[in-house]
Amino acid sequence: MLNIIVDTLGSDLGSAPVKEAIKNFLKLNDDVKITAVGNQDELKELEGLCEIVHAPDIVPMEAGPLEVMRMKNSSMFVANRLMKERQADAVVSAGSTGGFLSCATLLLKTAPNVKRAALVAPFPTKIKGKKVVILDIGASNENSAEELVQFAKMGTLYSKIIYNVKEPKVYLLSNGTEAGKGSPSGKEAYKLLDGKEGFNGNIEARNALSGEADVIVCDGFTGNVFLKSSEGMAKMMAGMMKAAFKKNLWTMLGYLHVKKGINEMVETMDYKSTGGAMLLGINGVVVKAHGSSDAFAFQCALNVAKNLAANKINEKISEELANE
Amino acid sequence: MLNIIVDTLGSDLGSAPVKEAIKNFLKLNDDVKITAVGNQDELKELEGLCEIVHAPDIVPMEAGPLEVMRMKNSSMFVANRLMKERQADAVVSAGSTGGFLSCATLLLKTAPNVKRAALVAPFPTKIKGKKVVILDIGASNENSAEELVQFAKMGTLYSKIIYNVKEPKVYLLSNGTEAGKGSPSGKEAYKLLDGKEGFNGNIEARNALSGEADVIVCDGFTGNVFLKSSEGMAKMMAGMMKAAFKKNLWTMLGYLHVKKGINEMVETMDYKSTGGAMLLGINGVVVKAHGSSDAFAFQCALNVAKNLAANKINEKISEELANE
Repeated sequence: MLNIIVDTLGSDLGSAPVKEAIKNFLKLNDDVKITAVGNQDELKELEGLCEIVHAPDIVPMEAGPLEVMRMKNSSMFVANRLMKERQADAVVSAGSTGGFLSCATLLLKTAPNVKRAALVAPFPTKIKGKKVVILDIGASNENSAEELVQFAKMGTLYSKIIYNVKEPKVYLLSNGTEAGKGSPSGKEAYKLLDGKEGFNGNIEARNALSGEADVIVCDGFTGNVFLKSSEGMAKMMAGMMKAAFKKNLWTMLGYLHVKKGINEMVETMDYKSTGGAMLLGINGVVVKAHGSSDAFAFQCALNVAKNLAANKINEKISEELANE
Repeated sequence: MLNIIVDTLGSDLGSAPVKEAIKNFLKLNDDVKITAVGNQDELKELEGLCEIVHAPDIVPMEAGPLEVMRMKNSSMFVANRLMKERQADAVVSAGSTGGFLSCATLLLKTAPNVKRAALVAPFPTKIKGKKVVILDIGASNENSAEELVQFAKMGTLYSKIIYNVKEPKVYLLSNGTEAGKGSPSGKEAYKLLDGKEGFNGNIEARNALSGEADVIVCDGFTGNVFLKSSEGMAKMMAGMMKAAFKKNLWTMLGYLHVKKGINEMVETMDYKSTGGAMLLGINGVVVKAHGSSDAFAFQCALNVAKNLAANKINEKISEELANE
């Protein structure tokens, strides 16, 4: 039996989609025990389905590490505390990213042999159904070459376990494909990775989503810029497209004809089916669902948590890194 | 009379669009003298219109700095050499970016008081017709806080001169909006810029194209990642959109209805009308037209070169930076 602790508060949409996700998830997974942490008045409908722990305070979106650690009655803090005390298998939250990451890191600590935890997320690619795993997308600000090398190994395991890629192709995110290109720590990491199994060299940001890479490694600052520029451009183009379709009756008629194709496109780009971002290299599986997750998105996050926990990803990471 | 030196070779489309651009440009600008550098056999039709200098070698796209400096008969090297010898006002090329930047920097040298040249490009924003100027997008790899502060001033002048913005709003590209966020040199630069005229703090990559910023400052590595992730995402979405429209007769019919709106979108995103990227802080105006420039795009690059030269941007930058 796997134990997953769920922070039911802090999502933009409140606890409703989280509760629905838990119910749907439990219908399909009788080998998982869930502990729902939050406001017990809101969680009555989960009685009998899972354990309920009362912790009604909500960590604000912009909370810093110290603030979270002081909010002992917040669903987020209690979820992480229970995770630690009970040595549960996974903790899932749709609350403040910064708050959740610091709380998890401070309470659970990095796993043995791991220098630094990394936030990892799958991105869509041009190849239908294929995802590329990018890390670190913002757990750290700077990273040393040695940390980047560890990220390469962590990302490889993630790609194998979650996407069943047999021999993941690993790249460093760089400003050119040649070996001499890259950030200072990236160049150093290139030398350390050169010749290693799975390492394919540098990749430019413009080709990151082309589908050739399974894993892309970068420092947290760069990963964050990559994530948010892609997001910004996607939103801007989607907005312009919407405006083009909404112009008049004729354009709306045009939309009806291409609706199916556009929906396929939206699906490909949809972060929801990926289950959010995961903090790798911590003692326990830590999954951050997107802040605006609906029930389906949160259920995907629970699936990812179960999958990672069942496959003991952090133990595997520690083992892999012990062989350095 | 302004003197502009044009490298007519090295573009993906050969010299044809460059020649057409020169002819169209000269029709509208009788106050500019152009020197066309390239293969004289290809440039016959420009005889009488402008000076022609024979230098038939083409610098390959992937050429490193040393290679360019050794290609003494290349159109790129000769264009930069003439720029220096004659103290011409501007040099324009659609050839290899890396090659052109190193050649220009090595031959022309950074302008007085400038610590480091910056590659600057305007990006489209959500606000129709409004551009945001982002620098450095790849002249350097790393930049110190002091260099970033200089970039803020250089970008401000650019925004004023080219886009007539009276009081440009300047931001630092960061992984959060709070003052404590950013890369190490970014955080340092924040302290130096804090309270200065025009400085508005940090901006996240997801809001870079929202239209709130006139100038966004970052180190060359980060700027390059921003440029190329935006480009990658835009291309991926455009490709998916095309596929959605091309599915069958009905979807193609749908396309006819929304064509105008989609074209407006494509226009907004079009780098061509922006004239490419400019290397700021060098002795002389250095404009890098996009490698796949058509005649219109190259003519825009010539317009930008004239505008920057007529406004003596580099002299203004040197003056501004002398007051530090």
